[in-house]
Amino acid sequence: MPEAVLCEGKDGAALVHLLAQLAEHVDNPVLLTRMSLGQLDGLPVELKKSIDYEPVSRTGFLHGKRPPVKGEVAVVAAGTSDNGVALEAARTLEFLGLSSVVMVDVGVAGLWRLLDRIERISSCDVAIAIAGMDGAMPTVLAGLVAIPVIGVPVSTGYGVAAQGGTALNAMLASCSQGMVVTNINNGYGAACAAFRMIIGKNWKQTNE
Amino acid sequence: MPEAVLCEGKDGAALVHLLAQLAEHVDNPVLLTRMSLGQLDGLPVELKKSIDYEPVSRTGFLHGKRPPVKGEVAVVAAGTSDNGVALEAARTLEFLGLSSVVMVDVGVAGLWRLLDRIERISSCDVAIAIAGMDGAMPTVLAGLVAIPVIGVPVSTGYGVAAQGGTALNAMLASCSQGMVVTNINNGYGAACAAFRMIIGKNWKQTNE
Amino acid sequence: MPEAVLCEGKDGAALVHLLAQLAEHVDNPVLLTRMSLGQLDGLPVELKKSIDYEPVSRTGFLHGKRPPVKGEVAVVAAGTSDNGVALEAARTLEFLGLSSVVMVDVGVAGLWRLLDRIERISSCDVAIAIAGMDGAMPTVLAGLVAIPVIGVPVSTGYGVAAQGGTALNAMLASCSQGMVVTNINNGYGAACAAFRMIIGKNWKQTNE
Amino acid sequence: MPEAVLCEGKDGAALVHLLAQLAEHVDNPVLLTRMSLGQLDGLPVELKKSIDYEPVSRTGFLHGKRPPVKGEVAVVAAGTSDNGVALEAARTLEFLGLSSVVMVDVGVAGLWRLLDRIERISSCDVAIAIAGMDGAMPTVLAGLVAIPVIGVPVSTGYGVAAQGGTALNAMLASCSQGMVVTNINNGYGAACAAFRMIIGKNWKQTNE
Amino acid sequence: MPEAVLCEGKDGAALVHLLAQLAEHVDNPVLLTRMSLGQLDGLPVELKKSIDYEPVSRTGFLHGKRPPVKGEVAVVAAGTSDNGVALEAARTLEFLGLSSVVMVDVGVAGLWRLLDRIERISSCDVAIAIAGMDGAMPTVLAGLVAIPVIGVPVSTGYGVAAQGGTALNAMLASCSQGMVVTNINNGYGAACAAFRMIIGKNWKQTNE
Amino acid sequence: MPEAVLCEGKDGAALVHLLAQLAEHVDNPVLLTRMSLGQLDGLPVELKKSIDYEPVSRTGFLHGKRPPVKGEVAVVAAGTSDNGVALEAARTLEFLGLSSVVMVDVGVAGLWRLLDRIERISSCDVAIAIAGMDGAMPTVLAGLVAIPVIGVPVSTGYGVAAQGGTALNAMLASCSQGMVVTNINNGYGAACAAFRMIIGKNWKQTNE
Amino acid sequence: MPEAVLCEGKDGAALVHLLAQLAEHVDNPVLLTRMSLGQLDGLPVELKKSIDYEPVSRTGFLHGKRPPVKGEVAVVAAGTSDNGVALEAARTLEFLGLSSVVMVDVGVAGLWRLLDRIERISSCDVAIAIAGMDGAMPTVLAGLVAIPVIGVPVSTGYGVAAQGGTALNAMLASCSQGMVVTNINNGYGAACAAFRMIIGKNWKQTNE
Amino acid sequence: MPEAVLCEGKDGAALVHLLAQLAEHVDNPVLLTRMSLGQLDGLPVELKKSIDYEPVSRTGFLHGKRPPVKGEVAVVAAGTSDNGVALEAARTLEFLGLSSVVMVDVGVAGLWRLLDRIERISSCDVAIAIAGMDGAMPTVLAGLVAIPVIGVPVSTGYGVAAQGGTALNAMLASCSQGMVVTNINNGYGAACAAFRMIIGKNWKQTNE
Repeated sequence: MPEAVLCEGKDGAALVHLLAQLAEHVDNPVLLTRMSLGQLDGLPVELKKSIDYEPVSRTGFLHGKRPPVKGEVAVVAAGTSDNGVALEAARTLEFLGLSSVVMVDVGVAGLWRLLDRIERISSCDVAIAIAGMDGAMPTVLAGLVAIPVIGVPVSTGYGVAAQGGTALNAMLASCSQGMVVTNINNGYGAACAAFRMIIGKNWKQTNE
Repeated sequence: MPEAVLCEGKDGAALVHLLAQLAEHVDNPVLLTRMSLGQLDGLPVELKKSIDYEPVSRTGFLHGKRPPVKGEVAVVAAGTSDNGVALEAARTLEFLGLSSVVMVDVGVAGLWRLLDRIERISSCDVAIAIAGMDGAMPTVLAGLVAIPVIGVPVSTGYGVAAQGGTALNAMLASCSQGMVVTNINNGYGAACAAFRMIIGKNWKQTNE
Repeated sequence: MPEAVLCEGKDGAALVHLLAQLAEHVDNPVLLTRMSLGQLDGLPVELKKSIDYEPVSRTGFLHGKRPPVKGEVAVVAAGTSDNGVALEAARTLEFLGLSSVVMVDVGVAGLWRLLDRIERISSCDVAIAIAGMDGAMPTVLAGLVAIPVIGVPVSTGYGVAAQGGTALNAMLASCSQGMVVTNINNGYGAACAAFRMIIGKNWKQTNE
Repeated sequence: MPEAVLCEGKDGAALVHLLAQLAEHVDNPVLLTRMSLGQLDGLPVELKKSIDYEPVSRTGFLHGKRPPVKGEVAVVAAGTSDNGVALEAARTLEFLGLSSVVMVDVGVAGLWRLLDRIERISSCDVAIAIAGMDGAMPTVLAGLVAIPVIGVPVSTGYGVAAQGGTALNAMLASCSQGMVVTNINNGYGAACAAFRMIIGKNWKQTNE
Repeated sequence: MPEAVLCEGKDGAALVHLLAQLAEHVDNPVLLTRMSLGQLDGLPVELKKSIDYEPVSRTGFLHGKRPPVKGEVAVVAAGTSDNGVALEAARTLEFLGLSSVVMVDVGVAGLWRLLDRIERISSCDVAIAIAGMDGAMPTVLAGLVAIPVIGVPVSTGYGVAAQGGTALNAMLASCSQGMVVTNINNGYGAACAAFRMIIGKNWKQTNE
Repeated sequence: MPEAVLCEGKDGAALVHLLAQLAEHVDNPVLLTRMSLGQLDGLPVELKKSIDYEPVSRTGFLHGKRPPVKGEVAVVAAGTSDNGVALEAARTLEFLGLSSVVMVDVGVAGLWRLLDRIERISSCDVAIAIAGMDGAMPTVLAGLVAIPVIGVPVSTGYGVAAQGGTALNAMLASCSQGMVVTNINNGYGAACAAFRMIIGKNWKQTNE
Repeated sequence: MPEAVLCEGKDGAALVHLLAQLAEHVDNPVLLTRMSLGQLDGLPVELKKSIDYEPVSRTGFLHGKRPPVKGEVAVVAAGTSDNGVALEAARTLEFLGLSSVVMVDVGVAGLWRLLDRIERISSCDVAIAIAGMDGAMPTVLAGLVAIPVIGVPVSTGYGVAAQGGTALNAMLASCSQGMVVTNINNGYGAACAAFRMIIGKNWKQTNE
Repeated sequence: MPEAVLCEGKDGAALVHLLAQLAEHVDNPVLLTRMSLGQLDGLPVELKKSIDYEPVSRTGFLHGKRPPVKGEVAVVAAGTSDNGVALEAARTLEFLGLSSVVMVDVGVAGLWRLLDRIERISSCDVAIAIAGMDGAMPTVLAGLVAIPVIGVPVSTGYGVAAQGGTALNAMLASCSQGMVVTNINNGYGAACAAFRMIIGKNWKQTNE
């Protein structure tokens, strides 16, 4: 699995200390997730320069990324508010060396937009299906494709949407068979899972 | 609204007492809901005879039903396990004098079965959409029709399905606009709501 | 259903991009919901000018509104704190071309204020009943009128009010028959549901 | 406070042991609550004889009851399913020496039945207001009377009624001022509270 | 019950409008609760002058208070963090014309401080017992006095304290008989309940 | 995906009707899940004969199983109480034509038993990791292998184990990267997911 | 830690198989917990004979118990309904070779019964404090003694007692310092924790 | 137990008043917990000078600390985000006079880092095991050592991590025997519990 650092919840001093240690190993790429702009700006100039940062996904690559591997993942998101999670997944896949195709705003309220993309999605190895509110899209998708579908609930919506809890439960209770699920907003974890599914036992490297 | 008695939770003696009082008014039809076979069998013979009972919906008509009114309701259920709730809705509609068409086993895991029925559903005045587990079908249906859609969550499923709680929340958080929702398993309430929508302010009778 | 954009949760750049696209179709009115003043002020001047914004409801009309249709809706709110949700419903009805009458501060703690308005409410096609805290008003109202009653729970109150969760559950568990419910604070959804109930199968236009 | 034994959850042998000890003090009346018929029948014949048992409330008086005191309590219940809890309250009041008047089936769905009884209720010292499902009745009652109102939620209903949890929260979040609440189904506790309110600091006896 | 305005959740313009209306009736005292300093400062100067404001309880008296009535209430709080709620109760009692004695920092972790005050508390007509975290103090108090005890849970503490939810449930599940409970942080409601208990059916005035 | 029937929650008559229909297509194998012995015994003799039933997993094969495909899955269960879920997974894999190896009682309280099996598990294509109570084993396993790990929470344990809810949440919040999760007790779903991962886009057949 | 088998949730065949294996090692005492009488009676005669069973605690000793060690534990329970959990703790302590003193019915509603026992409890090494409903007793006890206090919540009570959840949360949120807590009803776990506290690092034996 | 003040939730004036009182007793060391930098800076200069403050743990010693006692505690934390809680425990131990050894970043996702430290941990009298997210580390640790293990859940993580609720429940439901648990983030309480375990009945001083 990739060397990765979850930046959220770490205070400035601790983060600088940790990244400075990692930065000494220049041939070891590290993925930074949930890194705020404030956290990035709080780093020493040299350290900050060595990070390739993308703000919507809040991810950074320290010392580049891993060598490419064969495999493509469809990242499908129900609404434009799911953009941040979709990009976190896509950036993690890029870091891991996998290709991806991102499709946003294909929720089931406008069913035909999803139906139009089924063939393209089916040509991928794995689909990451991202949705908030009712979380219905991954269920509909999983009923239409044979590849693995990883549902990622998102904390959009209000009231009973419950910060993604309803989408999470709807995906877990899905009447489509063989769908699997990650924690809320966990685009990073879904990408790692796709990596396991595509590379799996052929993977010799061990990582932290 | 119909004179109705929710039998569940009433002990035998109290139920006999209540129904005996109601039975004295022979020209006043009463709907009995959630009546178990045991409760029916516990009634005095004469009283039992005056009830038209249907076991799957657990409903009874005491002294017949109301005069027919104009209007048709589509009762659409995602799975065969939702049968009881679908029939409770259909029987209540029948009692209220409304027509209905019942369609079972049209969940979104097999999307085409639902798509094939959209035209027929759109020809009705109101749709009652019944689903357990992920509760995704009413959302998809509401995205495809312009008539009112009343979502009824059902307590099927296990684990995070949470006795219908997940389906309920998914329907309330639906990304399809203008869907409304009732309590879990409340086919009776959905039928009463359809009646309000179809008859509404043209209805002069007042009821308890 | 109306073309509508839920602005809440969308970051500035994404919102500008989306609205700029929609603004190209000048004969296509769009409803903007949950738009903060900050979001409005962040738009390019030209775009901002083409929006009719109302701050209490946080709604905007881009390129005007839809042509009028026949029908009137009573928007009834229990307390003055429910104002924002009541106006979101009224503004959505206005956008959809429906008439509405708004009555605020008619909670059941002062029962007579509600009783005094029953006749007026009964003259409408649909009632939208808005309440927070104990959510009791819609139940009392539904016991007194025959028209459809759409309960909208509101996130007012504190402690066990649970950001509207208690009002939501109380409305769903209502002992008044045939009441239907929407998500918490969803005045927009209630108005769309009223539109379905009044126009329903007579509605030919299809929308996203 | 009364010497009382909560029988529910106590196994047969432990209950016999405890009651036999209490029965030795023949001039000390004891109230037994939530005692099933099975538990009563499991007692030795002599012990059983000394108990005045009432099955709907599942209460028993061991060695009679306390001397009468001045004061009357209105026990008001929304539905016939709330009968058991209403009688538990009334029997506890009887045991404590207080008068009571019981009114059942006065829920807010049929508002006028409640309005008709306001004057009689207002003539009492305290009102115990019992309701399940949406728990709306105590709120409406408290808005109409000046005497203390003790809300008792009941575990009737299904789905979101949540075994009385929704009624409980609705009563606690009530928009009527100065209502107080007990645990779900706790007719016994409500009666003890009424006793405190009526007798209060004039009460010299100390009890277990 | 007192004319009262819950200021929390009301925006500035609406609050000014409402208070200006109430201020026209100069002989009608009004209680303002949960009013922030910001809300107070946002009022017109004349209006602000006519309000007697106290910041810890966040309460204000508009046009003074009600005439004194006979009766004393013990306001007992477990910790210094419960101060705001205790003072909200005491100020409401003052507004209602009742006397009160406030005792703070008498939690059960230091049991003797509570035991030392039992005699004084017992000399009052009603006790309001305020506690957060485990909510144990009202239970212990109710086991030691015969007067009515109104438990008020407070949202202090962290983790499983759950913003007062644990204290609330602990009070409702109390093993001390006849304790009653209000919503979390509801010192105002507890004072109103005490007023009902002390004045009750002797109260002729009706208020909204 | 396999043609499958979830028998739980279906009443006898409906189940016979459904299976009789399916039984007409003798060359179409169907998987029956969560079928009780009572349900099996309630079937007509001929129908019952055509089913290969296994009681611990409560699964049945109607008309045999699917042709073998290449791939092996490790089914790893933390305790002996997880047996039923483990066998449901293994039987579903067998029905789908996949090989499996089942390892039971390898929970983390006795860590070495798990460590001793890492090499064997790593030789499989996918691991299904089954655990109740604290749900810790799948996290530890996923930290030690590179193949996909599907966590299946189980409803064993008591109190805060919450019928599998704690194990579910612990797996979703896992600090091991790229683990995916199914609904509680869903051994069937985990096996279907493993099938998707192994066969995926090479799968041409379409199913119900 | 002791070799122990949690029997609850294990079906008959699996339990016989497991115990038969363990029974082969005659010099290895095993503790059986949550074993129902039905499970005991389902064992082969020889196996059943080798078990010392106690029905209230539902515990059994297979091949006797461990050698005595120095140390005494106070097992304090608030109510007679907590008896089963108290005896499970006491039997586990006996199996582990520790002494214990059991005190039942010392809840805080009758505070003096607890105060009378403080000196005796303080003479022990550890206190196990068992309570359901409001869970207040362990908090009061921990405020009065310096020895370790292990709170064990019990699933007695009804309504908001929530099968022990309220007692659990109240103990965790306790305002008494340094109290620790176990799962609901876990008398066995509390005894094991007491063993760790008394023997701790002096314990050389390793166990399953 | 130590004289301690929980500063969180206390407003500035109240805190100054309380600390000024305590500061008068110069030979009585007091521990301040959850004190923000803002609270510290709000104190009068003299008072502030007499406090030894540490910002990561947010603890302060007023008038020094207690005399040393014999005993060592292992403070083991799963991730760097758990630092604050680990230091709160270590600082409280220091205040109490106990030695401690702190080990951070030994979570089970990298199992060997924990295994390498088992011998050192086993040489201590008590282990405090701190973890957020899945809360799995204390369970694994408790399976490997015989000393008391106090699990402290931490509010790190997102989504289903539920502000530490999942870690809390996982620890309470642990399949490792005899682990005990404190409230979320309660490093202070865990240190007090360790003090009880090490000093216990040998402790003569009484404190509030």
